[in-house]
Amino acid sequence: MTRKHNFSAGPAALPEAVLDVAQKELMDWQGNGLSIMEMSHRSKEFIAVAETAEQDLRDLLSIPDNYKVIFLQGGATAQFGLIPLNLLGDKTKADYINTGVWSKKAIKEAQKFCDVNVVASSEADNFTTLPAQADLKLDPEAAYVHYTPNETIGGLEFDYIPETGDVPLVADFSSNILSRPLDVSKFGMIYAGAQKNIGPAGLVVVIIREDLLGQCTDSAPTMCNYTVHAEADSMLNTPPTFGWYLAGLVFKWLKEQGGLDAISALNQRKAAKLYDYIDNSGFYSNPVAKNGRSWMNVPFTLADDSLDKVFLAGAEDAGLLNLKGHRSVGGMRASIYNAVPESSVDALIAYMKRFAAEHTA
Amino acid sequence: MTRKHNFSAGPAALPEAVLDVAQKELMDWQGNGLSIMEMSHRSKEFIAVAETAEQDLRDLLSIPDNYKVIFLQGGATAQFGLIPLNLLGDKTKADYINTGVWSKKAIKEAQKFCDVNVVASSEADNFTTLPAQADLKLDPEAAYVHYTPNETIGGLEFDYIPETGDVPLVADFSSNILSRPLDVSKFGMIYAGAQKNIGPAGLVVVIIREDLLGQCTDSAPTMCNYTVHAEADSMLNTPPTFGWYLAGLVFKWLKEQGGLDAISALNQRKAAKLYDYIDNSGFYSNPVAKNGRSWMNVPFTLADDSLDKVFLAGAEDAGLLNLKGHRSVGGMRASIYNAVPESSVDALIAYMKRFAAEHTA
Repeated sequence: MTRKHNFSAGPAALPEAVLDVAQKELMDWQGNGLSIMEMSHRSKEFIAVAETAEQDLRDLLSIPDNYKVIFLQGGATAQFGLIPLNLLGDKTKADYINTGVWSKKAIKEAQKFCDVNVVASSEADNFTTLPAQADLKLDPEAAYVHYTPNETIGGLEFDYIPETGDVPLVADFSSNILSRPLDVSKFGMIYAGAQKNIGPAGLVVVIIREDLLGQCTDSAPTMCNYTVHAEADSMLNTPPTFGWYLAGLVFKWLKEQGGLDAISALNQRKAAKLYDYIDNSGFYSNPVAKNGRSWMNVPFTLADDSLDKVFLAGAEDAGLLNLKGHRSVGGMRASIYNAVPESSVDALIAYMKRFAAEHTA
Repeated sequence: MTRKHNFSAGPAALPEAVLDVAQKELMDWQGNGLSIMEMSHRSKEFIAVAETAEQDLRDLLSIPDNYKVIFLQGGATAQFGLIPLNLLGDKTKADYINTGVWSKKAIKEAQKFCDVNVVASSEADNFTTLPAQADLKLDPEAAYVHYTPNETIGGLEFDYIPETGDVPLVADFSSNILSRPLDVSKFGMIYAGAQKNIGPAGLVVVIIREDLLGQCTDSAPTMCNYTVHAEADSMLNTPPTFGWYLAGLVFKWLKEQGGLDAISALNQRKAAKLYDYIDNSGFYSNPVAKNGRSWMNVPFTLADDSLDKVFLAGAEDAGLLNLKGHRSVGGMRASIYNAVPESSVDALIAYMKRFAAEHTA
C-alpha cells in the first residue's frame, strides 16, 4: 500500500490514523462480532459512539450549552433551503454576503423563500477580496445574516466574524470548520458538510442556538425541520451511522493533536509556506488579497496556462493528486485541510520548484 | 475476529464478502493511493463506481429504460414528504394502504400536503393480515397509491402487487427490495432506504418512471425535487460516496450469488424453515396470517413472556445478536435479509430448540 498526497477539495483526505482504526475494526467493531455499519442506531453501543462524537465536537469548539448539535443528511446544499424555512419565522427577508460560488448558491436557493438582500459582494473583484465590516449594508429587520466564511473554490476566507447586532449570524463553515478556534457564541447557526474537515460525505453538522428553534414553517417536510431533529437527538430516522462514527474518530484524533489551537498553528504554517513560495516564485500566482487568503484552499495559476496539463501529469507521477482547479476558475487548487500533513505541502512545494525550474528559460 | 449472527432489523448485516473487500481497500482503493472516501465524486474513478452500481441494480431488477434511478440522502422517511411534493401535480388527494407502523408514518407525513384516503387497513387485526385486492377502495382521481410491501416491524409482507389501473403505484421497498424478482413496470415509483438489503445507512434509492418527473411543487426546497436530482445524475451536490460504493459491492455480490432468482429461493427456504419450526414448536408463535408472512422479518413470541430476558441473554451468549422485537410490539424479531446466511438461521433454530426444551416442563 502506498498512500499518496491528496489535495482534493472534497470529499477530501481523512487522517491516516483514523482510516487505520476504521479499517482494523471494519468487520468486527471492538470485539462485538459485527461491523459498526451493521449495528442498530438505537443500540446502546451506537448511541455511546454518537454521544461521544457530539461531546468531543462540543469540547473542540467550546460550544455553549444553549446550542444544539444536530447530525443530518443532505449536505450543506440542503441547508441552503432549510435555513429560510427554519429561520424566517414571521419575517420575509434575509441578508446575504456574496463572496463566491457557494455564497451565490445559498442566495439563489434562499430567493425561493424570501427577499434576499445582498448586503455586500466581491463579485466585481472576481471574488478575490473580502468586504469589510463597514461595507456591510445590514438591515436590522432581516431574519438573519448569512455568509460563507471560506469559499472552497475561490480560496477566499474571512479574517473576521461579521458583527450583526441582534440579527442572528448564519455561516456555512463546510470547508473551514475545526481548522482554528471559533467563538460559537457569535453565531445563530453554523453548518458544515462533513466531507472536508469532519468525515466522509453524506453527513452535515448543524450547530444552532436554541432560541432559533421552533420557527419552522408548517409547509416544510418534517425532515426539513431542525426542531424535530434536535428533539429526537438526530435520530428521528436512521442517521448515517458510519459517517457519524468516522466523524467521532476524527474529533478524537483532533483532540489527540492538541485540539484547535495546535491544528490552527499547523494550518497557518502550512498555508503560509505555500503562499510564500507562490508569491516569490515568479512562476506561480494567487490572485486573492492577502487578508482574504484561505488556509484551506489555495488556488494558483501558472505563468503560462498552456503548461497546466503537463504540470498536472507530472504532479500525478510525483504522487500529488487532485490539484486541478475547479472548472469555473481553472488553474490549480491545493486543498490543505486538517488531514493533509505538512509533509504533503512540502512535497508539493518541492515539485512546484522543480517544475518551475524546468520550465523557466 | 469472530463474526456473530446478526439479526438486526436495520442497519442490518452486510455480506461478509463485501465487508472483506471494503476493508482490504479502505486505505488504498484499487492502487490509487487513497481511500474511496477521500475521492472527489466528480473524479472519473468515482463516476465509474457510481455508474457501475446503477447498471448492476438495473440488471438485477430488470429496470425498464423509462425509469430513472436516483441515489439520495435522507432515508425512506424523507421520501414520505417528498412523494406528495413531487407526485401530486395538480391533484389534491392520494390513496394509502395501511398495513403497519411504516405505512402509518407515510400517511401522517402525506397528510401535511394532501387529502389522504386510507383505502384499506389491517389495523383492526393488529396488522397481522393483508388487505385483499378486492378490499382496496381505490379512487381513480388519486394522484397515486402508496403502500408498504413489507412492514419491518410487524413482519407483514404483500404476496401480490396491488392493481391500481392508471393511477401510479408508489411503494416503500426499504426492507424487501432485492429479496426476490420484481416487475418494476407495475410501479410508478419504488424507493428503499439502503440499510437493510442495499448497504449502509445514509443512502436511499429512488426508482421513478420518467413521466412522473417534472411535477414537483415550486414551494419545495431544490434538494426535495426528484427531477433536479435525476437531471444531475444524483450529483446535484456531493452524494454519500462511501455508501454508494458499498451498495455497488452489494449489487455485484448479488449477481455473483446468481441474481434475484437464486437469492429468492434461498430467502424462501430460510423463512420457511424458521416459520415451520415456530409453528410446530408448541413454544413459540408468530401471529401473522400465512399469506402475509414476511421473508425478511420474522417476529415471534415465547409462550411465557417472562422468559424473554433469559431468551435474549442466552441468545447473545450463543452469538445470536439483535433478536429483541421492536418496542412497539415486544417479543422477538429475527430479520433475515439477503446478507444473513442460512447457517445463521440454522443456528437460531438450534438455539430456539435448546431453549424450548430447557423451559418446557
